[in-house]
This record gives sequence, structure tokens and C-alpha cells, in this order.
Amino acid sequence: MKINPVKGMRDYLPEEMRVRDYVQGKILETYRMSGFERISTPMMEDIENLDKSDGGDNLNLIFKVLKRGEKLDEALQSGDEKELCDMGLRYDLTVPLSRFYAANKESLPNPFKVIQTDRVFRAERPQKGRMREFVQCDIDILGDESANAEIELIDVTARALKNIGFRDFTVNVNDRALLRQMLENMGFEKDSLSTVCVSFDKLDKIGAAGVRDELGEKQMPENAISALYDFLEKGDLTLEAVKPYLSDTAALERLQTILEAANRLSDGSYTAVYAPSLVRGQGYYTGSVFEITCAAFKGAIAGGGRYDGMIGKFLGQSVPAVGFSIGFERICAILADEKFAVPQKSKLALLYLQDASFDEVLKKAAVLRERYAVTVLKQQKKLGKQFAQLEAQGYEGAAFFDNDEIKVFGQEKA
Amino acid sequence: MKINPVKGMRDYLPEEMRVRDYVQGKILETYRMSGFERISTPMMEDIENLDKSDGGDNLNLIFKVLKRGEKLDEALQSGDEKELCDMGLRYDLTVPLSRFYAANKESLPNPFKVIQTDRVFRAERPQKGRMREFVQCDIDILGDESANAEIELIDVTARALKNIGFRDFTVNVNDRALLRQMLENMGFEKDSLSTVCVSFDKLDKIGAAGVRDELGEKQMPENAISALYDFLEKGDLTLEAVKPYLSDTAALERLQTILEAANRLSDGSYTAVYAPSLVRGQGYYTGSVFEITCAAFKGAIAGGGRYDGMIGKFLGQSVPAVGFSIGFERICAILADEKFAVPQKSKLALLYLQDASFDEVLKKAAVLRERYAVTVLKQQKKLGKQFAQLEAQGYEGAAFFDNDEIKVFGQEKA
Repeated sequence: MKINPVKGMRDYLPEEMRVRDYVQGKILETYRMSGFERISTPMMEDIENLDKSDGGDNLNLIFKVLKRGEKLDEALQSGDEKELCDMGLRYDLTVPLSRFYAANKESLPNPFKVIQTDRVFRAERPQKGRMREFVQCDIDILGDESANAEIELIDVTARALKNIGFRDFTVNVNDRALLRQMLENMGFEKDSLSTVCVSFDKLDKIGAAGVRDELGEKQMPENAISALYDFLEKGDLTLEAVKPYLSDTAALERLQTILEAANRLSDGSYTAVYAPSLVRGQGYYTGSVFEITCAAFKGAIAGGGRYDGMIGKFLGQSVPAVGFSIGFERICAILADEKFAVPQKSKLALLYLQDASFDEVLKKAAVLRERYAVTVLKQQKKLGKQFAQLEAQGYEGAAFFDNDEIKVFGQEKA
Repeated sequence: MKINPVKGMRDYLPEEMRVRDYVQGKILETYRMSGFERISTPMMEDIENLDKSDGGDNLNLIFKVLKRGEKLDEALQSGDEKELCDMGLRYDLTVPLSRFYAANKESLPNPFKVIQTDRVFRAERPQKGRMREFVQCDIDILGDESANAEIELIDVTARALKNIGFRDFTVNVNDRALLRQMLENMGFEKDSLSTVCVSFDKLDKIGAAGVRDELGEKQMPENAISALYDFLEKGDLTLEAVKPYLSDTAALERLQTILEAANRLSDGSYTAVYAPSLVRGQGYYTGSVFEITCAAFKGAIAGGGRYDGMIGKFLGQSVPAVGFSIGFERICAILADEKFAVPQKSKLALLYLQDASFDEVLKKAAVLRERYAVTVLKQQKKLGKQFAQLEAQGYEGAAFFDNDEIKVFGQEKA
């Protein structure tokens, strides 16, 4: 039998789970105190729903679940590969939430402020920091089209990050409607905007000249490429500088409202900025997109956006929606790198000798548990060695069944 | 797009998740205070591991995950159905734990006292109270062959149940070694013991005569059937009555030790009894098996047993192991039936008018959050209706952005 976890997925040891449970607890506490409520949906979704879900590249990364029984036999006989599966593992929490909302709208408050923290799956090529199974911590506001929804999500997400100990991060905000308008007015064709955005999104990595060259290779109109390059080269990537490229200013004003409110709310503990080239991968975003970065760490620690079109696909009736997801795995990895010590209840080992009455041992443990987390263990002959092991495992001390002494580790040294 | 969850799986609404999170929180708190530590493993396991895992009927209920890319193409060309999948969704937490322990033994304490609470999957025919995706809450002790491990698991599990509010339950205990010895000495063939146990396990449902008839249909030896029937008919299903059927009394004494210690620990709050026909489904149990029942509810609310052979399959070296799993879904269903009210932080809605500065609204919410869980909502024109809705949603009252009044719901009536 194989002893390693399947490719691209991980086992978590007790010390890793302590960090994960701590981070999730802090995030949930912040979300709940902010009036958000948790729901849960199955790990699996109907395969057709997933296929039609507008998830961009993620649609190529779905783990598919084989049909069973007669239906599998039929599918095998048909010889049609597409018939083999009826379900897939979810690749995000937004598609299941949209389905959930469509199914339960009548019994949910409006606006619906919702928490989801759970596992998602993507059949990516495994690489450092990219797993095939990972946890997302999402909050979403459904039923509020105003910029207040974006402001509230930024506020709550920033407080969750601060609650875990993050400081001095940047909330990067853009609006796809504004971005598309700008690019169209620069001369790009409406049909080509998605592919233009893919290149533009790489600005941070490949620079203005890199974007220009890539758009050239994609044979975009010369005049449009020049207009974009000129804009980027000026180095003034502010909303003011974008204004000349816009036919109307509604999206710009909305973005301005969000940025100003976020910066007033931050009180200097983080900064909200306009990020002209921010696109985010998912096809389903329609308006605002955001991403939180931290100078000290590469990549984003949170991301999200507005997806006003998604719920309508399930419900047949449009419902405005916006979500923000904390990159749980990145947060945990950063804390692990920093050797973050999770605050925890004092741990004590209650040691007993072979011939002790074990139910009496457990009764003594119950009394000690009023003050400590207590494990019961057989006392080893080499007591010094056992103390050292226990101390290494994070125990503060040892109690003994046959006397009332408590040995506190590390005290001699103090 | 389909709006219902996939067959046999469920969405959980906010009020259901409150109960689920409360129950899981209470269980985890008890487990942790008792010195157990949480780990986590992937939802998916290697399909060969699962197939060889001795899981009894569960092996027919595995959701299989289709291969991807070139490997899928090869499998399709080979025409061999068994080649189509490389992973399966786990059907329990015991098989993954055994694999985990084999992979990480060197960095784990001995004995290893471990918590797992997470989802498992079984492709059963959906029926009331039987889901295709459900949560298990397990504790296991690995590396302790003594009866103390069983006693400790019973103590911790019983305290977890009491912590959630359960009383007057029964811990039913049997030992497969004792059971097999008894049946062999009655005259059943060693090879037939598994199928005999399947019938014997139904004693509670079909009675002694039912067991006799079923064993007759299975063409078991007449003298063995009579011996078992005579034993059952006497109605004295105590360990004393079993004694004459045993060649040695080691297993019996072990069971007696467990029962006596458990009853002394319970202090009358629950009862531990010998359950001669208790078998439990999994093929991997080798010794003790247990199950907790509660007169008020049908079926078991917890179950487990000793599986000393499992880890050896992965590690090539035998490690004693015993586990106890709380039936999380049943517990939640029982609490929901009883309309259990989850204790929670006081909830307040902070209402604001359309023209309010939203970041100021959120700043006021931050201050109120020192005392309440606070959601911010637009104030509706029909304020009385909005109050009624909020009260129905569990809010204790409303605060207002533009004044310092707090409207406490339901006060006029008091």
C-alpha cells in the first residue's frame, strides 16, 4: 500500500493543524462579528453546472467523478468519453454559492451576507505553493448592487487579516467595466478584450514593453498598442490619468468612492490603491476586482470581485453579487515560515504507573482539566527522557497520579 | 443550470450551520482538553489503497475520480474499465489515518492520540438519515495495545456527548476475538464466522429465531445453530453466561476490565454493557467493538473499535490502534428535531440611511462590535416591517447610524 498522500495534496501534522485551526478561527470570528453567516455546500457539483460556469482556466482543471452502476455501463457502451462522469469536485466556492442562493433565495435574508470556508480542488500541475486541494475562506454579499458592498467586504477582509497579525498590506482595486471601456477607447476591438486583458494583467511581471510586444505578437491593432504603451510609459497610473480614455465616468466614480472609503476606514493600517492592470482570472467577474498584496510576500493573500451575472444563470433573474476570498493556504504558509506560535491552552501530561487503577487516573485528569489540557500517559522508566520529549511536544509540565506534585518543565534553567 | 445539490448530498442553511459548528466546536473542545491533537488528510486517496482497505460493504460505495490527460487517453484505449480511475473519495477516516501514521510515524508521539473531524463519502442509495456525504468526528489512539486505550476513548467520547447535552446513553461493548472464539466453540467453521456474524448482528432486529432461521438458510451446521439458539433463548446475555463457550478467558477479562472502568467513570451518567451480538460492519476490526445508543433515538450515535491489523498493511510493522467515531450527522439531526437553540453572541443590526457616509457607518459598527455581533443594513422605509424581519432572523435589536438609540426587539410586549 502507498503511504504518501495522492499527488498535489497534503497531510497536515498536528503542529500544522494548530496553525490552520487558529487562522480559520480568527477569520471566522471576524466574519461572524461582522454579521456574516456560514453556509456549507457539497464537495461535488453536477458536472454540467461546472462545465457551464464560466470559470476560465479552472474549467480545464476539474476532477471528474465516474458514474456508477447501470449508468456507468450505459456510458461505457456508448463509447462517449463525455458521458462517463456525472459530477465534478468544485474548483471554487462561488459557483456552489450561486447555485445555493438560487435554490434557497426565499428563506435567506436580503442582502445575504455569507461565509464559506472549505476545500476546493483543481487538477493543476503540482508546484511549490500550488496545491490540488486547498482551503478558501470567502465572504460574499448577494443582493446589494451598491459600492457599499465592496467597501464592506474590503473592511471585513482587512480586519480579518489584521486579526491574524498582518499589517501594511495593499488593497489593489480595479473595475473590469472601466478597464474594458479604457481599452476599447484606445482602439482594441470589443471581441479581443479578454485576450488583451490576459497580456495587460502581466504588467507587473513583464513591464510595459513586455505587454506591448505580447500584444504585437497577438496581432492587435498598432494604434491601440501604441495608445496603451504611451499610457503605461507616462508612469502616471492614476484614475485621473485614465479619465481621458473614458466615454463616461460612472465606473470611475464608483471606483473612486470605494478607494476613498477604504482608505478612510484603514486609518493608515493598510492602503487601498487603483490597480489599472488588475484583471483576475475568472471569467465570471463583471465589475470590481480586488486583490490584497503585502510587500513582504510574493503574490496575493486575498482576492475577489463582483460577479453580477452568475446567479442569474441559475435563477433566471439577475442578482448582484460580490465576494472576497482570503488565500488561506498562503496565510498559513507565511505564518509557518515566520515560525508563528499559536496561542493555546496550557498542556499538562498526567503520568501513571503500570499498576494504577486507570479509571482513577482518568478521574484525576478530569479535575486537572479545569485548568489545563491534560493527556494521560504511562510513566516511563527513564523519566528525564520522558520529560524532555514532553517538553519538546509543547507540554508545560507533568502531573503524577500517585502524588500531587506538578513538575514544571524548564524551571531549573530559569 | 440545476439548482439542487447533487443526489444524496445537502446544502446547509445558516441556521443549520450554527448547530453544526456548535456541535463540532463542543466535540473538538472536549477532545483537545483531553490531550488529543487534530490532523487532516486529503478527501481523495489512491484507488488501490482504498480497494485493498478491508472496508467491507463500503468498498462497493467508493466514488471514483477519473484520470486526466494522457493517462486517461491510455486508459480509454485499453478498454479496461478498472484503468479509468486513479483516485477515490475516502469512505471513512480510519484508512487515511493509517496511511498518514505510516508516512509520519517518526515525527509523531507514541502513543499518538489523534482527532479527525471531516467529510467522508459513500455512494449509497440515498434514504432518510443516510447521506452520500457526511461528517465524522473521530478520535483514535495508535500505539497502545492495552485496554486503557479503549477505556480512555469511551471516557472522552462520553464526555463529548455530555458536553453537547446528551444523557442516559448506553455504551455497548463487545470483542470480536471473544465473539469468534464463542462461535467456533459452538461449532461454526472458522471460515464461516464472518457470514455468521452478519446474521448474529441482526439479533436486535430479527430476534433469536430470526438469527436461527437465517443461519439455517445459510446452511450452517445444525448443532452450531442449536447451540447459539439455546444460548440466546436463555436470555442471559452476560459475560458469565458466555464463559462456558470459551477456551481461554483473556478476551473476556479484557472486556470485563473495560466495562467496569467505564461504569466507574460514568458515575451513573451513562451505562456500559456487554453487547454479545455487536459486530459492526467494517472488516478491519480485530478486537473490541463499541457503539453508543440512546433509548430516545433509534440507531447508534457513536461507534468504533480496535483495528490492530490496518497500519501494518501500510507500514509493514504492526501497530495497535483503536478508534471511536461520533455520528455527527445523527447528533445534529437529533438537536434539530429538538429545536435546540445554539448559544450565540448577541446580534445587532446597525441601520443607516441612503445618504450616510458608509465608512462612518462601518466605523460606528466597529465600536458596537466590542459588545455585539453587528451587521450593517440600509434602513427600510417600512421600519416596523424591517424590525419584525430582523427579530425573526435572531437579531436582539437595532442601532441607528444617525442617533445613539438602541431599539431592543420584543420589549413592548414584556
